[in-house]
Amino acid sequence: MTLSSAAAPASDADLANAALINRYWSVRQLSAALCQPLEIEDYGVQSMADVSPPKWHLAHTTWFFETFLLRPYLETYLEFHPSYGYLFNSYYESVGDRHPRPQRGLLSRPTVADIYQYRAHVDEAMAKLLSRQADHPAVAELTALGLHHEQQHQELLLTDLKYNLAINPLRPAYRQDVAVVKCACPTPLEFVGFAGGLYTIGHQTTDFAFDNEGPAHPVYLQDFALANRLVTNGDYLEFMADKGYQTAAHWLAEGWAMVQSEGWQAPLYWEQRDGQWWMFTLGGLQPVNLLEPVAHLSYFEADAYAQWRGCRLPTEAEWEVATARLPVEGNLLTTDHLHPQPASGNRQLQQLYGDTWEWTQSAYLPYPRFRPAPGAVGEYNGKFMCNQMVLRGGSCVTPPGHIRPSYRNFFPPSARWQFSGLRLAKG
Amino acid sequence: MTLSSAAAPASDADLANAALINRYWSVRQLSAALCQPLEIEDYGVQSMADVSPPKWHLAHTTWFFETFLLRPYLETYLEFHPSYGYLFNSYYESVGDRHPRPQRGLLSRPTVADIYQYRAHVDEAMAKLLSRQADHPAVAELTALGLHHEQQHQELLLTDLKYNLAINPLRPAYRQDVAVVKCACPTPLEFVGFAGGLYTIGHQTTDFAFDNEGPAHPVYLQDFALANRLVTNGDYLEFMADKGYQTAAHWLAEGWAMVQSEGWQAPLYWEQRDGQWWMFTLGGLQPVNLLEPVAHLSYFEADAYAQWRGCRLPTEAEWEVATARLPVEGNLLTTDHLHPQPASGNRQLQQLYGDTWEWTQSAYLPYPRFRPAPGAVGEYNGKFMCNQMVLRGGSCVTPPGHIRPSYRNFFPPSARWQFSGLRLAKG
Amino acid sequence: MTLSSAAAPASDADLANAALINRYWSVRQLSAALCQPLEIEDYGVQSMADVSPPKWHLAHTTWFFETFLLRPYLETYLEFHPSYGYLFNSYYESVGDRHPRPQRGLLSRPTVADIYQYRAHVDEAMAKLLSRQADHPAVAELTALGLHHEQQHQELLLTDLKYNLAINPLRPAYRQDVAVVKCACPTPLEFVGFAGGLYTIGHQTTDFAFDNEGPAHPVYLQDFALANRLVTNGDYLEFMADKGYQTAAHWLAEGWAMVQSEGWQAPLYWEQRDGQWWMFTLGGLQPVNLLEPVAHLSYFEADAYAQWRGCRLPTEAEWEVATARLPVEGNLLTTDHLHPQPASGNRQLQQLYGDTWEWTQSAYLPYPRFRPAPGAVGEYNGKFMCNQMVLRGGSCVTPPGHIRPSYRNFFPPSARWQFSGLRLAKG
Amino acid sequence: MTLSSAAAPASDADLANAALINRYWSVRQLSAALCQPLEIEDYGVQSMADVSPPKWHLAHTTWFFETFLLRPYLETYLEFHPSYGYLFNSYYESVGDRHPRPQRGLLSRPTVADIYQYRAHVDEAMAKLLSRQADHPAVAELTALGLHHEQQHQELLLTDLKYNLAINPLRPAYRQDVAVVKCACPTPLEFVGFAGGLYTIGHQTTDFAFDNEGPAHPVYLQDFALANRLVTNGDYLEFMADKGYQTAAHWLAEGWAMVQSEGWQAPLYWEQRDGQWWMFTLGGLQPVNLLEPVAHLSYFEADAYAQWRGCRLPTEAEWEVATARLPVEGNLLTTDHLHPQPASGNRQLQQLYGDTWEWTQSAYLPYPRFRPAPGAVGEYNGKFMCNQMVLRGGSCVTPPGHIRPSYRNFFPPSARWQFSGLRLAKG
Repeated sequence: MTLSSAAAPASDADLANAALINRYWSVRQLSAALCQPLEIEDYGVQSMADVSPPKWHLAHTTWFFETFLLRPYLETYLEFHPSYGYLFNSYYESVGDRHPRPQRGLLSRPTVADIYQYRAHVDEAMAKLLSRQADHPAVAELTALGLHHEQQHQELLLTDLKYNLAINPLRPAYRQDVAVVKCACPTPLEFVGFAGGLYTIGHQTTDFAFDNEGPAHPVYLQDFALANRLVTNGDYLEFMADKGYQTAAHWLAEGWAMVQSEGWQAPLYWEQRDGQWWMFTLGGLQPVNLLEPVAHLSYFEADAYAQWRGCRLPTEAEWEVATARLPVEGNLLTTDHLHPQPASGNRQLQQLYGDTWEWTQSAYLPYPRFRPAPGAVGEYNGKFMCNQMVLRGGSCVTPPGHIRPSYRNFFPPSARWQFSGLRLAKG
Repeated sequence: MTLSSAAAPASDADLANAALINRYWSVRQLSAALCQPLEIEDYGVQSMADVSPPKWHLAHTTWFFETFLLRPYLETYLEFHPSYGYLFNSYYESVGDRHPRPQRGLLSRPTVADIYQYRAHVDEAMAKLLSRQADHPAVAELTALGLHHEQQHQELLLTDLKYNLAINPLRPAYRQDVAVVKCACPTPLEFVGFAGGLYTIGHQTTDFAFDNEGPAHPVYLQDFALANRLVTNGDYLEFMADKGYQTAAHWLAEGWAMVQSEGWQAPLYWEQRDGQWWMFTLGGLQPVNLLEPVAHLSYFEADAYAQWRGCRLPTEAEWEVATARLPVEGNLLTTDHLHPQPASGNRQLQQLYGDTWEWTQSAYLPYPRFRPAPGAVGEYNGKFMCNQMVLRGGSCVTPPGHIRPSYRNFFPPSARWQFSGLRLAKG
Repeated sequence: MTLSSAAAPASDADLANAALINRYWSVRQLSAALCQPLEIEDYGVQSMADVSPPKWHLAHTTWFFETFLLRPYLETYLEFHPSYGYLFNSYYESVGDRHPRPQRGLLSRPTVADIYQYRAHVDEAMAKLLSRQADHPAVAELTALGLHHEQQHQELLLTDLKYNLAINPLRPAYRQDVAVVKCACPTPLEFVGFAGGLYTIGHQTTDFAFDNEGPAHPVYLQDFALANRLVTNGDYLEFMADKGYQTAAHWLAEGWAMVQSEGWQAPLYWEQRDGQWWMFTLGGLQPVNLLEPVAHLSYFEADAYAQWRGCRLPTEAEWEVATARLPVEGNLLTTDHLHPQPASGNRQLQQLYGDTWEWTQSAYLPYPRFRPAPGAVGEYNGKFMCNQMVLRGGSCVTPPGHIRPSYRNFFPPSARWQFSGLRLAKG
Repeated sequence: MTLSSAAAPASDADLANAALINRYWSVRQLSAALCQPLEIEDYGVQSMADVSPPKWHLAHTTWFFETFLLRPYLETYLEFHPSYGYLFNSYYESVGDRHPRPQRGLLSRPTVADIYQYRAHVDEAMAKLLSRQADHPAVAELTALGLHHEQQHQELLLTDLKYNLAINPLRPAYRQDVAVVKCACPTPLEFVGFAGGLYTIGHQTTDFAFDNEGPAHPVYLQDFALANRLVTNGDYLEFMADKGYQTAAHWLAEGWAMVQSEGWQAPLYWEQRDGQWWMFTLGGLQPVNLLEPVAHLSYFEADAYAQWRGCRLPTEAEWEVATARLPVEGNLLTTDHLHPQPASGNRQLQQLYGDTWEWTQSAYLPYPRFRPAPGAVGEYNGKFMCNQMVLRGGSCVTPPGHIRPSYRNFFPPSARWQFSGLRLAKG
């Protein structure tokens, strides 16, 4: 397959097309690159219902292009396999039946080799489609959506893989070169104040955004302040030392019930060996570094910590207002750390992007006058607007170009397997 | 026991005290009056974990006064029974251990007679306390809180009892004289518009309110419109006829999962006999009346109906703004209908209070700068601020004097056993 | 209602009829007498799926007569209530649908008074039927069956009630006058030998027996020995002190799994207070008496104890052979102790009948050429011949005239709420 | 690795040693050979808690030799990996903790290559041990036990694999050349009678047998008759056509409950497509052949079928007595059919060995005076003697040399994933 024939742009539209094609290529290649350190056996494991096997992520993202682009828009397209629609649909009710989610790890076939062939087959067809019709608005829009969709799954692939490796008693590393920073200077906690008033939040440019980021709309905020950095492991250990996990008063009722039923005593992936705390990282088991942002907290833990500190979590509007004009930079997947890093530098507000997603106290709900995208791809964000909380800012495994000020991530308050931490707020 | 000695007020404070004592007496008597139609056997049943036996409601509301008023403030008080603290604490972690909630229906002892003695014992002591110290600010405040607490349980007692009777194959009536209205004139659906702008919501007077109703604070609303009346059984049957329960597209993902797993095909308490829909009421099984407000919907069903109609649910702020200046009147417990009634009358917005609680699209979250009430009674509202949705307006079993514009009721989106319905919104 | 008109026998048949009528009357009255100490609230509780509320036992035994005697054989019979067939059928598939077993405790109606009326209604009709047709073979046979059935439920009523009271934190007594024997002389453990050979076991007389007790058939036994008495609390405490509940080697795999999952540390109803063992009895909480037979053991515990002692449980054939010619006497319900008693007396084999049921190592299986009784009443014993173990000998709550040498009781190996203990065997 | 140094026998003992070494080698190689058709992805799947991944079978059987032979008897042995004891212990409580059974399929590491290295490492050490000490009685005995143990796992590996492949919507074949026989002559059903009397059953020779096959002991049997062949798919379809799965009267109570809860309508692996019955085989989906023995029945289904036919299942004693003097021949793994075959030939009793395991009506219980093997390997059979039923005769995937007249297989009555069928009995 060559994409070179698409590489001779002349007009603005041609330039846009070329950019889209390049982006298609680079996003798709990154998925494969992220799997490069895996053994074949690693591709198939699903260690809890929330996670999916790497193989499934590779296939499902491919199915997205096949289903929403190639079938409707490439006349000559021949589907790769009649059962893949059933196997790799995630939750699109309007597209047909699906293989039950908790059983994704029970399928030894299709093999990993089959899935890479599937990817190649679809990539070839997409190259054809994009070379001919990249200027078709629906094709361009849906391709962009498909690429952002694949980026979401790249992050999930890594967080899911971390979970799969962590529950293995051998504690195998994803990559040996992922290491916890050994020394750093502490950044004292300070609060940065913001004046209240009417602000506009939500996506306002013509760049790509998911439907749930709009419409832009005014919100009234009271004066508030945000911490200059994320809460660290050291901070969190103080909470633990002060019997944080043993004191009901700090917790939401549902959180306290989970502390009891799940036996939570520390963040996910932490374990005590010979009196010392270790944590599982994508580089294997490593000692807990006090200066790093704490990660793998549920909303319940983030909220309990904030209560204990006499603070609270930010709302998503506060976070967006505070962040609006700052550059989208940070410890994202591009840095290749694959792990949160200590705060550093001179910015007033550090670690806004990357390191860990920040739990907000905002429930994931539709913005005023929200309308889901039309068609099956509208089954993307709106139908999850219940019993989930918003997280902001991306993490150390968020792919480049995927995060922005208005980006709304969301998970149930009990979820811990994402790189999820917190920033304190006041007011 | 006589309360007459407290009935010779002279000053404003005395008047307030007398009012409190009268209110104490009338609220407490209503609880017993509501149980008057019960057989002894009815007092002990708990037909699912969400509901509590009538006996437990009678005892728990009494425990509240014993624990938060009599122990701390009446020196001479002798506790009624050493185990009742364990048996009748609901969820106050700071007050000590509790009997597990799902096992409330397994206790034949204490007997019903024991519980009425417990109530008499506590009432006598409360009479003593109030006659001496009704002007003690904490006593007055906590007594008021205890009475509002008991009123909440009066509503729960009736909704829980309805559930207990409904699952009985004999479908016994709570009272034979509860009847569905046979004829009424339909009220056409219309929308009443409201202009957007900055509004203040939340409790603003010095009257009693729960901590979660404050602080009052500004919110920015866009233009919106509310339906003039509640959605009726007839309206809802159109949704059912249009395969509402079979069409995933109308539903939140979690709601659709419940439709599948629970086999929902109609509101709770509806059953089809010989091709006709009947519903269980507090007066037994009765034919579904098309003009009545539909009740016993989950949030998921309310939301799905609204989506299907091309509308949405109101936010709690919209509801409060629309209702702010209207009188608190409607088909509440005082009317003794014990069942929702068809809309009638000339008001622009009908059925705002009473009939059914109205699901809003607002998650139950703290208002800005919310602080829970201090002490154990602060474990009342704040700790449930997760995974629940706000309902507004009261129902046909809400006791008199218990509802107000800022009142925030909350239940998980799957709950159906309350009198819960909906009003459509737009904009 | 009077039965006196049936009381003028002249012939042998008349004598038999009169005996049956007398027996009908005395069995039925005993059920009511056993409930005399109950509060109305006690009649409705079902504290786990295995137990049934007293009210249900009273109604179900009545339903048996209504269904199998009155409907088919008393032409003029008018059924008491159209829903009682549904509510009080236990498991007779051929008789129609049933109310789900785990929901028996959720029905406040029919009330206790209703059930006593139901009993009176059926008793009156049975008096009519027996006065006219007691010599009809099917009527006589089915009445006898119905009375033995009711006796089984009398025992269950007491064991179920014990469970219901025991889980109540107030630990209420069924009767205040049930007391643990304070002093007794220990009976040293000895083994009584029996020679091997061909024996016949199974029911061989024309007296009443359940279908599962036949046909009589030869079995070959090797030499064996049985302990002269039941294992005592004192014996069992030695096992506990020797880490019996902590040592996997003594246990069947499934038993060990239950020790882990259920946290078993002692027999059911035992609890430690201030370093001392107490047990819940029908007379309330009482100190564990070392000389009493241990009761409320699962098969797993009985088997583990025997393994630990280097012994084994008897087979049911061994038990029957050893017991065959001995009188049916012991601490049964007639003694009104309602609790196991220490061994005493000079018999070689003590406590064979009464005190506690004895777990055998025999699975509950059909005897060779077993055929279930014809018709619906054949759904009585045969269909449970899987995954249950045989117990022999009756207990302190087995009604008079209900036990015999060939009687086969059966429960799943995990069951503990019966008065179930063990006798050691060797060889 | 060479075993040739062990291949110069001179004496009887030497001959025995050489035979053991040869057997070691051939059994171990068969395990690998059975896995030859697998993709790497197939090695790791565990599709229900009852089955284990092929990788685990390969490792666990190796762990057996490492734990019970190499550690105690080969001084110079270096363990392969410190965690493998934890990962690959199945249920030996006395050997230490284990990885939880239901999580065997969640481990991508150790990889398949790691496991084959583990096998090579242990094989090399076993070669050393056997070349030096094959005449050490414990070494010889435990090696023989280890090989029979591995043979059991060979059968399980194939039945587990069949389950793993069957739940895959792609229905992949294990081997393409496994085919259902297309034509055969029906063998009419006849019963072969046996005279009652005293017989001895149980293992009586000095050949290898599991501890649960002894001691040999007398049993008294009444006259009985066994069917000349297994029940076929055609026979079983008659039961299905006669509403066998819809008629409670044929079923044990627990079996009927499973029919309801599991929705059983046919044997495991059967599915209807376009009105025709197909079944999943190790060669993929194939049409049901009427003349083949029916397989993949639970005990409940086998028992219900026999009841419906007015027959019963044999006892294990009957089966053993009837089979005692017949040659151990049949459609075992050696025929490489990997699927049951129609009856053929002139024997009075056909298909006694191979094709399908035959459910008996005997509960799996200790024979009189049974003593488990001493030491940890005694945790092999005895501790499962509860809630399981005995099966006899081996199946089409039972390895050569593994089955014998006294062999007692056992599974819970609900198990269906083994090749389990039935033979009718009478009398």
